Amino acid sequence: MKLLRYGPVGQEKPGLRHDDGTIRDLTEIVPDIAGPMLGEAGLAALRALDPDSLPVVPGEPRIGACVGAVGKFICVGLNYADHARETGKAPPEEPILFMKATSAISGPFDDVEIPRGSTKADWEVELGIVIGTRAKYVAEADALAHVAGYCLVNDLSERAFQSERGGQWTKGKSHDTFGPIGPWLVTRDEIADPQDLPIWLEVDGIRRQNGSTRTMIFDVAKLVSYISQFMTLQPGDIIATGTPPGVGLGHKPPIFLKPGQTMRVGIDGLGVQIQRTIEARA
Amino acid sequence: MKLLRYGPVGQEKPGLRHDDGTIRDLTEIVPDIAGPMLGEAGLAALRALDPDSLPVVPGEPRIGACVGAVGKFICVGLNYADHARETGKAPPEEPILFMKATSAISGPFDDVEIPRGSTKADWEVELGIVIGTRAKYVAEADALAHVAGYCLVNDLSERAFQSERGGQWTKGKSHDTFGPIGPWLVTRDEIADPQDLPIWLEVDGIRRQNGSTRTMIFDVAKLVSYISQFMTLQPGDIIATGTPPGVGLGHKPPIFLKPGQTMRVGIDGLGVQIQRTIEARA
Repeated sequence: MKLLRYGPVGQEKPGLRHDDGTIRDLTEIVPDIAGPMLGEAGLAALRALDPDSLPVVPGEPRIGACVGAVGKFICVGLNYADHARETGKAPPEEPILFMKATSAISGPFDDVEIPRGSTKADWEVELGIVIGTRAKYVAEADALAHVAGYCLVNDLSERAFQSERGGQWTKGKSHDTFGPIGPWLVTRDEIADPQDLPIWLEVDGIRRQNGSTRTMIFDVAKLVSYISQFMTLQPGDIIATGTPPGVGLGHKPPIFLKPGQTMRVGIDGLGVQIQRTIEARA
Repeated sequence: MKLLRYGPVGQEKPGLRHDDGTIRDLTEIVPDIAGPMLGEAGLAALRALDPDSLPVVPGEPRIGACVGAVGKFICVGLNYADHARETGKAPPEEPILFMKATSAISGPFDDVEIPRGSTKADWEVELGIVIGTRAKYVAEADALAHVAGYCLVNDLSERAFQSERGGQWTKGKSHDTFGPIGPWLVTRDEIADPQDLPIWLEVDGIRRQNGSTRTMIFDVAKLVSYISQFMTLQPGDIIATGTPPGVGLGHKPPIFLKPGQTMRVGIDGLGVQIQRTIEARA
């Protein structure tokens, strides 16, 4: 299933993307694509529905972030062998974890703000893991059972704020709109192998990132298990699993985003995001 | 006003601590101590009530975290001049920010888990800021108007996970129960000067931290303004403002927590927390 949320910011309704390309309304079925309904029972109930029987959502509504009420937005740093090489750093021995503010989450086609004073705004296409059930001290062999599905994430970053302003990366990762997720939460059963997905990003029509989840250093099962040793994963938590080569900072000379540009972001099977960059709003 | 939440974990109800020492029930007035009701209008409506007219909560219920549905749990590192000296580090030129998982939040008297494999579990008493209204690009002069009030925070840390396992501090800051907040959200009008509060912590009856918010490097107004340049603060967000000297890591030799110990934690006017340490639960 491809689950989504549509409607104005803050008023998103649950929906399902039908194979015929229409959005079908789930408002009468579930309150939101969020929290405990992301567990096995909740997803099984949706799977049991006949999509043809659901009302078609008319027009072309805004598509919101594909998960609501996200409790934690956890990110993994330097998790692609080829991206680690590009940054000149040794591949990490253990996953590098950091947090993005959940207030940075936005829809896949929403404008992306360039923060005031930004000189080094950068892109990062990533495979997002959506947690379905609580996971604490979970073994690697059991980890995938806690995953509801996957989504596309653009982990936007301001590199100067991230690394030149003292302390931790959070500062450069958390601006409003720095976390487009979606268009869809694609349930786990639809992704045959999360470690074999083409993943790419374009800026103004030029392909800047082009990779495969094959080159991840720590795979999905390892990451879920590992993170669950340090904090309890809850339904609706998102893990952004790191980015392949080709970020702006990795170019020689580096290339950064300015207002007025367009990003296209994709992972095979998870859809495409399109974002225009704008000046930060108040 | 002293606002609080009482009842079993996950089922907390809103309450008010009356000057007579009783808890008065606010269930009929507000759904929770959380979100938009923390703004001026919401707090004014509570202030207009006659506390004597509110029902007394019988017995001695568990006290939960004093704010519900916390969106972000933002922490400031090395923000006391005397604590920075103790760690041997230069005082930061700009605030150091990091995030704690919101799933680490617990009640002020709940047991604190020592994570599996922990060898360096440590305490940090901190003044917590509770955000009342949205703050983005806020000037220092306007910052306090966005603050609903203050609360006591124990920012528990596992120093080996924080600093010896690769990457960012989040890993050592986010274990379940590593963020007791409360007992009360004390509204801003009740705290004459947040920069002149005695702040202390005891382990097994020995005073380990003893300081004053006077020695903060970046004060409350500066922190709210500064953080609002990097991310949008929302009602119910918590900012833990750093810790005075005397953390376990600062002792020579260092002292760390083991299961079976008791912490008493306090800030004048914000109440006292008491936590027993236990082995991590599954």
